[in-house]
Amino acid sequence: MRVERIRRVLENLERMGLEQMVVTDAVSILYLTDIWVDAGERLVALYLNRSGKHCLFVNHMFTLPQDPGIEVVRFSDTDPYIGMLGARVDSGKVLGVDKNMPSRFLLPLMDQGSGAGFVNGSLAVDEARGIKDQAEQEAMGRVSAINDQAMEQFRGLLKEGVTERQVAGQMKEIYQSLGADDLSFPPSVCFGANGAVGHYRCGDVALKPGDCVLMDVGCRKDHYCADMTRTFFFGKVEKEEHRRVYELVLAANRAAEAMIRPGVRFCDIDRAARSIIEEAGYGSCFTHRLGHFIGMEVHDYGDVSSANQACAQAGQIFSIEPGIYLEGEMGVRIEDLVLVTEDGCRLLNSYSKELEIL
Amino acid sequence: MRVERIRRVLENLERMGLEQMVVTDAVSILYLTDIWVDAGERLVALYLNRSGKHCLFVNHMFTLPQDPGIEVVRFSDTDPYIGMLGARVDSGKVLGVDKNMPSRFLLPLMDQGSGAGFVNGSLAVDEARGIKDQAEQEAMGRVSAINDQAMEQFRGLLKEGVTERQVAGQMKEIYQSLGADDLSFPPSVCFGANGAVGHYRCGDVALKPGDCVLMDVGCRKDHYCADMTRTFFFGKVEKEEHRRVYELVLAANRAAEAMIRPGVRFCDIDRAARSIIEEAGYGSCFTHRLGHFIGMEVHDYGDVSSANQACAQAGQIFSIEPGIYLEGEMGVRIEDLVLVTEDGCRLLNSYSKELEIL
Repeated sequence: MRVERIRRVLENLERMGLEQMVVTDAVSILYLTDIWVDAGERLVALYLNRSGKHCLFVNHMFTLPQDPGIEVVRFSDTDPYIGMLGARVDSGKVLGVDKNMPSRFLLPLMDQGSGAGFVNGSLAVDEARGIKDQAEQEAMGRVSAINDQAMEQFRGLLKEGVTERQVAGQMKEIYQSLGADDLSFPPSVCFGANGAVGHYRCGDVALKPGDCVLMDVGCRKDHYCADMTRTFFFGKVEKEEHRRVYELVLAANRAAEAMIRPGVRFCDIDRAARSIIEEAGYGSCFTHRLGHFIGMEVHDYGDVSSANQACAQAGQIFSIEPGIYLEGEMGVRIEDLVLVTEDGCRLLNSYSKELEIL
Repeated sequence: MRVERIRRVLENLERMGLEQMVVTDAVSILYLTDIWVDAGERLVALYLNRSGKHCLFVNHMFTLPQDPGIEVVRFSDTDPYIGMLGARVDSGKVLGVDKNMPSRFLLPLMDQGSGAGFVNGSLAVDEARGIKDQAEQEAMGRVSAINDQAMEQFRGLLKEGVTERQVAGQMKEIYQSLGADDLSFPPSVCFGANGAVGHYRCGDVALKPGDCVLMDVGCRKDHYCADMTRTFFFGKVEKEEHRRVYELVLAANRAAEAMIRPGVRFCDIDRAARSIIEEAGYGSCFTHRLGHFIGMEVHDYGDVSSANQACAQAGQIFSIEPGIYLEGEMGVRIEDLVLVTEDGCRLLNSYSKELEIL
């Protein structure tokens, strides 16, 4: 059990007026207990109560550490496990449930009246996870340093005629050779016009001079995720507009990063980057939010967007990733991970962002 | 839109007394529309109504085919998309919701009163998905044939001193060289005592004579999943008991497969295998259900277990995977995929199951 992390969750629950909560997200359970149970379609649930009577529900078929450090209730597929979970809940009080709790567990929990009401309680966990403690900051630094080294090797794979899929296909091995455990998400390797296709991964397109190469890549180590995007020019800059687009995106990236410190609103960080792109007439080509929180998941709760009026706090880690996408032509995105410090911020990626022609 | 598949879902909804349903599972949406949207934490929803006024809700950021073949409602992160979804729902009638619908979408849908009640409606989709049509049966046959070929190559990797991780690490590439798209799940390669550890994947243990080698592996092709387990002896059979255990598991596997035909209860199939193992005194060493349904997901809805009193139907595909696990010593599991035919069943795997000493 991670006592300090659970203490922060309980504090958050108190602020939300909740006495109790059921956490079902495997990553959040790992964060709070150090126990990883990949239960697939089966239930795994961490019941938290401000009284301190916490309890972990795990199917018999999953192995737990010798000393799990928390009371454990075991069940099998044929046991009435929703009833067993309900029996622990204080049915006279509102129950906070995990935002990811699937309806197949939530609806029967409601039907059996296990709670005076049901609300999404995940903010209590998400806000705790949003502020990384010392160990987490170090893990995020380590995995981002691997991503920097890997990007250098990925750049070396960009030769005329190589396909996106061939480049992407070598990444996992490169990451592992650098000490990472795995990819943190399927890499995006986009040549030319594919750089403008939202959520494109890779295909059989071959690299040719004049292509922009957008690589959005990340690895995972010790349960923490890296995420970085760099855009290169291959052979030449095809059009002057492409150079201007690159410099705009870089300026937007730097403007946002320059203003990050505790107390600055996320919508204002988004605005700083977006206004540069808008004023140059490319506002409609920047089709997404500026960034997302990251940690044990590539997309942790929280984002840097026009809709988020919250203020940055020390210990938060998120991406800053402005982009301009010219449909049918090319796309540029430049993405770093940023750690908010007491008096500013620190970039977790140090890979060069200057325009580079390979 | 897959008209015939949707027709079957609507028929199932009618039998369940439901007029309407919201499907949020990306795989089920792919099954019903041929459209794949990997929306991550964002909402993607297929609203089905027996009147035929179906509608797909997709965030602007995801690319759709030119002609999606269904009415599409687009929204952005800052739109009130739960409200937009609710506006389509007939609030005077009960709404079936996807079993996987996360509480962060379900609770606000309930709070805004989008439905006279809310029930898990997934059985309507799951039962349709449980009976594979011709195209699906062929896809499952193709991917299982690749798994057979791959097993032969995996077997060739088993040399003294090789580690589980080294063997597992080569599997994805072997699968892809045989035409598969990807792994269908992280492979399990278990040497010796690791074969008895539930849900073990692989580690740095080196292969030595006398080890049992349990490999539970599968690939994915054209959205369909293979899954097969074979257990080999390396160098020698260490103890006579190990041979007996192998033969028992094989007998259990064959006994179950021999009785599969439409109309046979799943609990009776489970019983046929389990009783052979129990009667030999190893009942407590067979710690899981006999099998699971499989298709677009490795674990589709439905299983072959003592709790399932339903009867097999033609077109269903599931695994038959009895096992005996001797803790601290070894484990044997033999798993095939089986297609129920009009008058019996057909094994999708043809890789030999005879005891083999490598």
